[in-house]
Amino acid sequence: MSPSEPTIRFGIMGCADIARKVSRAINLAPNARIAAVASRSLEKAAAFARANNLPPDTKIHGSYESLLDDPDIDVVYLPLPTTLHLKWATLAAQKKKHVLLEKPVAVTVAELDQILAACVANGVQFMDGTMWVHHPRTAKMREFLDDKHRFGELRTIHSCFTFAAPDSFLKDNIRVKPDLDSLGALGDAGWYGVRAILWAAGYHLPKTAVATRALVLSEQGVILACGASLHWEDGKSATFHCSFLTHMTMFLTAIGTQGTLQLNDFIIPFEEHEASFSTASQARFNDQVTGWEPGPVTEVHVVSTDIPQEACLIRELSRLVGEIKVHGGKPDLTWASRSRKTQRVLDAVKESIDNGFQPVEIGN
Amino acid sequence: MSPSEPTIRFGIMGCADIARKVSRAINLAPNARIAAVASRSLEKAAAFARANNLPPDTKIHGSYESLLDDPDIDVVYLPLPTTLHLKWATLAAQKKKHVLLEKPVAVTVAELDQILAACVANGVQFMDGTMWVHHPRTAKMREFLDDKHRFGELRTIHSCFTFAAPDSFLKDNIRVKPDLDSLGALGDAGWYGVRAILWAAGYHLPKTAVATRALVLSEQGVILACGASLHWEDGKSATFHCSFLTHMTMFLTAIGTQGTLQLNDFIIPFEEHEASFSTASQARFNDQVTGWEPGPVTEVHVVSTDIPQEACLIRELSRLVGEIKVHGGKPDLTWASRSRKTQRVLDAVKESIDNGFQPVEIGN
Repeated sequence: MSPSEPTIRFGIMGCADIARKVSRAINLAPNARIAAVASRSLEKAAAFARANNLPPDTKIHGSYESLLDDPDIDVVYLPLPTTLHLKWATLAAQKKKHVLLEKPVAVTVAELDQILAACVANGVQFMDGTMWVHHPRTAKMREFLDDKHRFGELRTIHSCFTFAAPDSFLKDNIRVKPDLDSLGALGDAGWYGVRAILWAAGYHLPKTAVATRALVLSEQGVILACGASLHWEDGKSATFHCSFLTHMTMFLTAIGTQGTLQLNDFIIPFEEHEASFSTASQARFNDQVTGWEPGPVTEVHVVSTDIPQEACLIRELSRLVGEIKVHGGKPDLTWASRSRKTQRVLDAVKESIDNGFQPVEIGN
Repeated sequence: MSPSEPTIRFGIMGCADIARKVSRAINLAPNARIAAVASRSLEKAAAFARANNLPPDTKIHGSYESLLDDPDIDVVYLPLPTTLHLKWATLAAQKKKHVLLEKPVAVTVAELDQILAACVANGVQFMDGTMWVHHPRTAKMREFLDDKHRFGELRTIHSCFTFAAPDSFLKDNIRVKPDLDSLGALGDAGWYGVRAILWAAGYHLPKTAVATRALVLSEQGVILACGASLHWEDGKSATFHCSFLTHMTMFLTAIGTQGTLQLNDFIIPFEEHEASFSTASQARFNDQVTGWEPGPVTEVHVVSTDIPQEACLIRELSRLVGEIKVHGGKPDLTWASRSRKTQRVLDAVKESIDNGFQPVEIGN
């Protein structure tokens, strides 16, 4: 952190479970600090501050409005239920707060567009809460995918994120409430699979999405498990599967003409300070087709990080906000564009599910 | 091998590349030996025998008919192009030869049914050339899938087998010739994915198959890449992808309610004498959702084998043939049933491809 770089002040809007992790990340990021926390009651906000060892000078707000009117806050972090994003993220932007929005960023891309328009109109930075893309491992994986010799040209991507939610979650969690998070497992777990696919594809949008029939709905019609295949104009394809109903499993496999990238912990690394991924290049069977040459072809790459990936996210967001705050720069729209593409694909998959698994063309 | 167990005599019908590997396997199996080799010319058969160090007393046949009339042969191994299977496997059965048939076993299940009917009518054993199911690793993986505590109830399976075939293969190999192997990558690479899925599902047939749009056809209309999702009555689902056009990659991931099985070399193990697979059970994030508890959850299981998996296949087939030959037993129909189910799913996927990716119901 250069001496001229300011410490960016975060306000936490809502005391969801995930806010615990993000609070810690703000504390760990060298260019950020927690300035305030808000809940719909003062008591709840104060209890959150105590339970999470927030700095003693953290301001406690008893309403979201009060937080947004606080002049000593640069960025608002919104871990609210998805259906509340439109209202509160838009309002935050209008109050000139930079926006860190949990995923899924909105119920539809149309809602997201309103949020993003508010951010642009008010000159504030937008970023979604996808953490793994900020891990230095992701940059190392990108180098592999960009290597024409080791990886070649991307052809297919397969991704999966499932976990077996306990009965209490399936009954009461906001992610299975149609009025709070109508995308269910698609918005929660599927977000990561879709984002990983787009990341691997250099954020080029697929042309078509087709939901698979591996669909499970709750009694209230919320998605508990689903999947889809995605298809690009140039012949690339991808599949993802997500579920609240099976054992915790995540994988990302990207296959090119010359090599393969694989990892089983892409969303949250097994361990915080060190993460790995596997690559293989020019794999082939031996001449007698009785084994692989030259033996197991997998190369394991270990990447360490000075701070956890969620703190890397906060550091990057604070850097961008600092540019605006100190140098009068404009918001960087890269992250908004990535969020929008992810949401765009989610929308198409949802539409395919609603249309009885028919293909849905993905516009811009 | 017990003293009463006979040595089963194999005749190799055709000198395809894969016959080299199977010749070696017959030599390595304790209860089998190569008795004869046939090609459409004596010279070609003799050259094959020399090049593959077949025993000096191996009979050389200059025609397939001559091999089938040889009274000193128990089993005929047929590595012929798929479109020739119906004619030659049926004839072999009629000549009272037990049948080891390369995969894909037929162009359609209707053709396979004729072959299987001939085997039953003539009391001969049938087995297809899928080798990995005979590796002792497969039995150990089965134990994991059957474990209600460690794996729970099977929910989803994902499988992939791709390799980047050289230009010469894509131009000239029998697997891309519509008149020789009209199923292309689906019959060749896809066979393994489908078989693995059926294996994981305890050979219960899915109800529906839907091909994905990840389809690539050659100029002659042969499948070079494709995939599908499969769906069972009870909500289980599976996906597979196969291709001749991307880097060699294979994976099998079976996910239950309590655990996950994963391996990346299921068709041909990286090494011949030792193979591994990974399992995870009750994986979860730690309380702060910053890593996995208790660290990387994957357990690696190593399984060694006294002889390569293809020799295990020959040993098992020879054991079954020995039962018939010595004790007058009946053919074991287990393997025929598994071949038929695999072919049945391939047929449905092909039909879905031909129908423009519409779902196809899988009958019996």
